[in-house]
Amino acid sequence: MNENIIGYHSSALGNSSFKTINPKTNQENETELTEATREEVNLACALAASAFKKYRRVSGKDRATFLHTIAEEILNIGDPLLELYMSESALPKGRAEGERSRMIGQLKSFAALIEKEDWREISFESVENKIRKLLIPIGPIAVFGASNFPFAFSTAGGDTASALAAGNPVVAKNHPMHAGTGAMIAKAIQTAAKKTGMPDGVFSNLNSNSHEVGKNVVQNKHIKAVGFTGSLKGGRALFDIANQRDEPIPVFAEMGSINPVVITQNALKERSNEIASMYADSITTGVGQFCTSPGLLLTIKSAASEAFVSELSKQLQHKNEGCMLHPSIYEGFINNRNTILAQDEVNAVLQLKEGEMANSANAALVEVPGAIFLKNTKLHQEVFGPFSMVVSCDNEEQLLEIIQNLEGQLTATIMAEESDVQTLDTLVDALQDRVGRLVYNGVPTGVEVCEAMTHGGPYPASTDSRFTAVGTNAIRRWVRPFTFQNLPESLLPNSLKNA
Amino acid sequence: MNENIIGYHSSALGNSSFKTINPKTNQENETELTEATREEVNLACALAASAFKKYRRVSGKDRATFLHTIAEEILNIGDPLLELYMSESALPKGRAEGERSRMIGQLKSFAALIEKEDWREISFESVENKIRKLLIPIGPIAVFGASNFPFAFSTAGGDTASALAAGNPVVAKNHPMHAGTGAMIAKAIQTAAKKTGMPDGVFSNLNSNSHEVGKNVVQNKHIKAVGFTGSLKGGRALFDIANQRDEPIPVFAEMGSINPVVITQNALKERSNEIASMYADSITTGVGQFCTSPGLLLTIKSAASEAFVSELSKQLQHKNEGCMLHPSIYEGFINNRNTILAQDEVNAVLQLKEGEMANSANAALVEVPGAIFLKNTKLHQEVFGPFSMVVSCDNEEQLLEIIQNLEGQLTATIMAEESDVQTLDTLVDALQDRVGRLVYNGVPTGVEVCEAMTHGGPYPASTDSRFTAVGTNAIRRWVRPFTFQNLPESLLPNSLKNA
Repeated sequence: MNENIIGYHSSALGNSSFKTINPKTNQENETELTEATREEVNLACALAASAFKKYRRVSGKDRATFLHTIAEEILNIGDPLLELYMSESALPKGRAEGERSRMIGQLKSFAALIEKEDWREISFESVENKIRKLLIPIGPIAVFGASNFPFAFSTAGGDTASALAAGNPVVAKNHPMHAGTGAMIAKAIQTAAKKTGMPDGVFSNLNSNSHEVGKNVVQNKHIKAVGFTGSLKGGRALFDIANQRDEPIPVFAEMGSINPVVITQNALKERSNEIASMYADSITTGVGQFCTSPGLLLTIKSAASEAFVSELSKQLQHKNEGCMLHPSIYEGFINNRNTILAQDEVNAVLQLKEGEMANSANAALVEVPGAIFLKNTKLHQEVFGPFSMVVSCDNEEQLLEIIQNLEGQLTATIMAEESDVQTLDTLVDALQDRVGRLVYNGVPTGVEVCEAMTHGGPYPASTDSRFTAVGTNAIRRWVRPFTFQNLPESLLPNSLKNA
Repeated sequence: MNENIIGYHSSALGNSSFKTINPKTNQENETELTEATREEVNLACALAASAFKKYRRVSGKDRATFLHTIAEEILNIGDPLLELYMSESALPKGRAEGERSRMIGQLKSFAALIEKEDWREISFESVENKIRKLLIPIGPIAVFGASNFPFAFSTAGGDTASALAAGNPVVAKNHPMHAGTGAMIAKAIQTAAKKTGMPDGVFSNLNSNSHEVGKNVVQNKHIKAVGFTGSLKGGRALFDIANQRDEPIPVFAEMGSINPVVITQNALKERSNEIASMYADSITTGVGQFCTSPGLLLTIKSAASEAFVSELSKQLQHKNEGCMLHPSIYEGFINNRNTILAQDEVNAVLQLKEGEMANSANAALVEVPGAIFLKNTKLHQEVFGPFSMVVSCDNEEQLLEIIQNLEGQLTATIMAEESDVQTLDTLVDALQDRVGRLVYNGVPTGVEVCEAMTHGGPYPASTDSRFTAVGTNAIRRWVRPFTFQNLPESLLPNSLKNA
């Protein structure tokens, strides 16, 4: 039985429990999770608030040691963690290992960031040095695990790592689809907190397969901000709850995207097959279950574009079917794909073959005329899974109009030739208005963890485009500037004292 | 007749108009303002969206020239601007001149900031330099003028200056109490935009003395963020409207504060009279109409604190009455003061004498026991005007409990002696949790414009404590990170090119 983790303790006050499902077999996994009660939510949040008073005074070096120890404790679990991950997500071992490395890398990159105090944006007023500013943590953060990244965007993922790095306690809401994996990681964090002497309550992990627990966490007065990665519906619901509080709190929700890709005529003429192969891979990476999956391919209708669509279809056809993360995600994929197929003038280029194994999806490719896409916003909805839509435009103007009318996106990509470059200014400008990251001659899947990364974008890609969820600047979501005016040396934080 | 300013043009499509009031005489000023219609709101916002496409590509140097030219054009108006300011606010000439200098200084400090590109937080991925990031403007910003700073926080105030500096067009909602001043400044901005060849629509100014126009602006799909300085009720209303949009937008509302001041026993014993004199000045500066006015003085009840209260009362009694900004603000002051006086166990130390001149307020000082203040949150409400409340606590624990239970504030102040310093850690920590700026042995009134300043704080001091409204970092409210991945040199913005 996996209990809730409330600071240094385990807790199972409730009577209800649930198990996760192995999507490959549709059978329940062994691990049983105790659903958190209202009382446990309140306990975790109150303990986080009390831990905050101590944790915000813990030095950067000691918080870095805490993050490093979390990484070690997670690695110490070894294969059992990878096996549970795989049985709860159907993702293969290579991905499990790769994503674990990413999670460990994130923890270490935030640890490296806070070893020094530069990240605090220390600033001294120039005349008398009496006004001094630095960034401080804002308080307990609620972190919601993502379905599609049980490691990198969940219990010990980027939100938790950045919040803890900044000096904020975390109350994690375990994702119900991989709650066993989450519970295992939560125990590693708990062990690391104890080993490094962090205050009781610096981290809690609540199990739930309902919406009630998440809602109660976000409404709890001790919670000061929310990190979420998931659907538009889920993210918007949390955003609304947070903003309707007596004291509204910021919500950073990353809610997915269809990630438009513009392919020029020259690119299609020069290397249609190469691009088709690149995109067949990108569309099916992780069974298409990436926020940055390329769901929208924009071209101008021509013989070259027709050849490309046909080649892409062929390449996708050769991909193996893939088991999706969860029966409900597979069901969502089928429903959303069918909604698109049911719209007027949508041509099913490839598909309709259902997977042979449980919850397994084959790639789907559809084509629609630009004028239809412009008119019918149902076609703009994300189909989470191995799906992409080619929009065949009449001309450059229509393609530009489509971009200008697109909802906010995480990424956009331009596939073009050297000879196109001089003509791309307007396109770059239009895409810049709609996205957070622009890729040139590449694929949007794969989000490198570095300071120069932006993972976020205009709504509904995320709730606040002014922040990124990936890279060291993700720490900015959980901090605020604070000014000390005329304070005696001894009352200033160390990093604001005179050299 | 003062029409609405919509980009390069003046517009008066509506039939309704209003005049401002001279609070000293209760007479209408001569200037007449045409109320903006729904159509004019839509025109201004659509023109701002179209101007954004060009304005965001204007170089930093050219935007700086625009800001400098705005400053020149405002100065060129000369005395008529100061006279209108005075007749619309009852503020004296010295204040008018000082606030104009501040407004000009702000425009120039943002101009200096954007002359170079450092503010864009340019970042290159370290390995291959293929991933490059910078801050970009988010789009048209709605700016609401503040009642209490017709220059520094209104039409050409900090919000407008920082939004224009970042590359965003501005749609200003003229504050009805000083709409003549606002219209005059708006014309200066319009002239500067024309002179420097900025795109038509980079700035608009809408007149209104109702809530409808502001609501329509915030609901307009072209508006991407909101800046506001004013009451909690007004700020929260705009915040709610913005968050209920299909595409929610960020609102930075600075909504005032009671700015607690803690005075130690030693400070009271050593220099009671000096502190009383300092605070009598601070409480009555600008007739107490500052967001950072010290409305709450926390002491431990003792002979020394009684002597201090009596001295402060005496000093305040010698202050002249002051005409408030507007009849409705005077009325609000009287009502809010009377609400406080009507609460149980509130001792009116000084007051009840109404002003002799129209809309003129005398300073009021009340005293309540700590236990009463803790229980009755009505006593925590801001009384905008020359008012302060001494809370006499039983002991240190009670004082700390009061701070811990206080709503978010812009500032807090500690008045203490050298001998106190060693004992102040816990107090500093508790105050840090509740405010954006901590002052030591000074007064909170006076917010220096510098990079190290924080003007903002935990809700309800502002809607998002992660940003400041004063100082160069105020520009952060209106920008977002953007990542270019693998782009050819020629398609990158100049500041991201090699070398």
